[in-house]
Amino acid sequence: MNPAAAQGLILHAHLATLAADHGYGLIEDGAIAWRKGRIAWLGPTAELPHAYDTLRATAVDAHGALLTPGLIDAHTHLVFAGERAQEFEQRLQGASYEAIARAGGGILATVRATRAADETGLLAASLPRARALLADGVTTLEIKSGYALDLPGETRMLRVARRIGDELGIEVRTTLLGLHALPGEFHSRRADYVREVCTHWLPHLHTEGLVDAVDAFCEGIGFSAAETRALFIAARALGLPVKLHADQLSNLHGAALAAEFAALSADHLECTDAAGVAALAAAGTVAMLLPGSFYVLRETRLPPIAALRAAQVPMAVATDLNPGTAPLRSLRVAMNMACTLFGLTPLEALRGVTVHAARALALNDRGRLAQGLRADLVLWDATAPAELSYWIGGTLARTVIAAGQRVV
Amino acid sequence: MNPAAAQGLILHAHLATLAADHGYGLIEDGAIAWRKGRIAWLGPTAELPHAYDTLRATAVDAHGALLTPGLIDAHTHLVFAGERAQEFEQRLQGASYEAIARAGGGILATVRATRAADETGLLAASLPRARALLADGVTTLEIKSGYALDLPGETRMLRVARRIGDELGIEVRTTLLGLHALPGEFHSRRADYVREVCTHWLPHLHTEGLVDAVDAFCEGIGFSAAETRALFIAARALGLPVKLHADQLSNLHGAALAAEFAALSADHLECTDAAGVAALAAAGTVAMLLPGSFYVLRETRLPPIAALRAAQVPMAVATDLNPGTAPLRSLRVAMNMACTLFGLTPLEALRGVTVHAARALALNDRGRLAQGLRADLVLWDATAPAELSYWIGGTLARTVIAAGQRVV
Ligand SMILES: [Zn+2]
Ligand SMILES: [Zn+2]
Repeated sequence: MNPAAAQGLILHAHLATLAADHGYGLIEDGAIAWRKGRIAWLGPTAELPHAYDTLRATAVDAHGALLTPGLIDAHTHLVFAGERAQEFEQRLQGASYEAIARAGGGILATVRATRAADETGLLAASLPRARALLADGVTTLEIKSGYALDLPGETRMLRVARRIGDELGIEVRTTLLGLHALPGEFHSRRADYVREVCTHWLPHLHTEGLVDAVDAFCEGIGFSAAETRALFIAARALGLPVKLHADQLSNLHGAALAAEFAALSADHLECTDAAGVAALAAAGTVAMLLPGSFYVLRETRLPPIAALRAAQVPMAVATDLNPGTAPLRSLRVAMNMACTLFGLTPLEALRGVTVHAARALALNDRGRLAQGLRADLVLWDATAPAELSYWIGGTLARTVIAAGQRVV
Repeated sequence: MNPAAAQGLILHAHLATLAADHGYGLIEDGAIAWRKGRIAWLGPTAELPHAYDTLRATAVDAHGALLTPGLIDAHTHLVFAGERAQEFEQRLQGASYEAIARAGGGILATVRATRAADETGLLAASLPRARALLADGVTTLEIKSGYALDLPGETRMLRVARRIGDELGIEVRTTLLGLHALPGEFHSRRADYVREVCTHWLPHLHTEGLVDAVDAFCEGIGFSAAETRALFIAARALGLPVKLHADQLSNLHGAALAAEFAALSADHLECTDAAGVAALAAAGTVAMLLPGSFYVLRETRLPPIAALRAAQVPMAVATDLNPGTAPLRSLRVAMNMACTLFGLTPLEALRGVTVHAARALALNDRGRLAQGLRADLVLWDATAPAELSYWIGGTLARTVIAAGQRVV
């Protein structure tokens, strides 16, 4: 591989192209060549055209190892200061969520720490988490704001998200999670807060080029459907796509609301009903499954997988990486949990972190292996694609290539 | 650190010594020095004696990072050929366990593949799994036989287990899992098989120096209490310690049987009753908790954690790494599952993979940080010990030292 020219060649790999609408799209003993960061050719190694002979000198022999598109983690909150391991420990020692919240814990602890951190500190705290995801094959990453709850802090979070992409040589898509929690200073002034976000923060951050999409936490303990609607209308006026934390703990008909605004994705969905599923299907909105928080919270109510499958709603899988309910440092853990806890097949889990995750970020140049697409590639210490969901824990990626450059 | 002399010095670390009977035994801003593979001194960095000044030139500044004893995975089946990701996939596509077994899947698939592999192939297949555990902080590893079910194959498995220790520079303890499954050629000759194992295999393998302990799978689908007793009597005659897969799927009073033979550990214990817990407490047998298989099998019956705690039975935690019910590649995943699924505190989980795991392997020279003990050390990308259980997935170890030598 030649980093300077973002070109290279891998021979004798087991390619999972995911190129067709169904199946793994396997090519046994496959080769893949890329130039200028894009896939130039792929097919059986024996059929590699002579045009790529110049790349043979630096080619990698995969010896039958699995090669997939770079994974895409399309829902994370990984920029924050102050992990919450102590709170995890207190809960297991018997403290209730309420007691921890009364003592200043929970999301407000993260808000305090994130507000207190400057841009350098926030980057230093967040980079190792992004690096851990990258080490296990993630080459495209969505990161949400929502832990500062004031304009300078949300700006800092989104800037740090962009810098993470630059530092690691991978692509980061930023999401303004405008309505996440009500900050203390707006206590009993909810309407003022929503108005401030919609009419001031959003246009300002959009002008700064920091907003790829807009999100809200539509929940009894978060924001109402009406408040979410106000934010979505503001986003639409700016031409920005939306997505939604929908129906995680209760059914506020978030899926239908997301669909009404042709959201990129509706996320969580544990309490979504049949009407919500139908709305997602009609709108072409991706169902973003987040089994990590389901596992951590010991939830029992499953998202309506069978109904989503029957309605052919594309299902994506993400870590939801956050300090409270999903301290996940590998997207493959979420894939395993999607299989073990939600009953997805390993194929659905893999499509969920490639093809469908790309769609959830409105990126049509990745998530599959095909000529002309971005050369985001992972060579694995595995041979069968099901192994990516099967093995739990550790790091399975051997080589990670983002836009044609080796990054791991 | 100086590999040649197995000596070194780490300064400014957050030491979790686990040296006392309770608590983390924290030393903030601590230093630890070792010589000839043993811990020579530890304490506050400011109090480091001048005798260690010569080590300062090559000392590592931990900048406040957490340092713990090397982790101990005291229950694995990691030597085998032929992973079973395909079967995992078939089950998620709707195939029943019975249908898979009828088609030659399940443990017998692993037996076929393991019998067919020569020593080199078996080592090549198994080493990456041991390496993955090591990469996340495991410096002592137990490995069981039990997938060949014939003498040449069990011999090969145990030899490969020893070679893994040599290759990686860590210590491997071998266990003859003599009664795991009945091989096809002994169908309807159970008594002959048990006699063969007890009177031929066990003494032979013991003479070869390949058996540190003896184990059985006491279960309705495995071997009866009477068959297990015969094996334990044979082990006792040779002076070998025993341990037992006890009460995982049904209560065959395996815990009490293990205690009767003063077993090192009784493992699984999901169905153990109050009498079993009392017997373990009286015998000083370690309760080996294996939440990975509980998770994979979607079990609902929990081991009697509160009763074990009340009776002060030492609780260890292990991966149970195996191709069917626990394809775990990091001991920290098992620690998180022990907390999330079984309700252990992060302190109990950490003691369970250090102090109590050492006891389950009858190793009294490790599992804590204290002068004279083996210099098995892990420096983590973390500051609080609870983080080891809190973060899920990926690899968190920064530097791993086994017997004073850096191995990661
Ligand atoms: Zn989220
Ligand atoms: Zn086992």
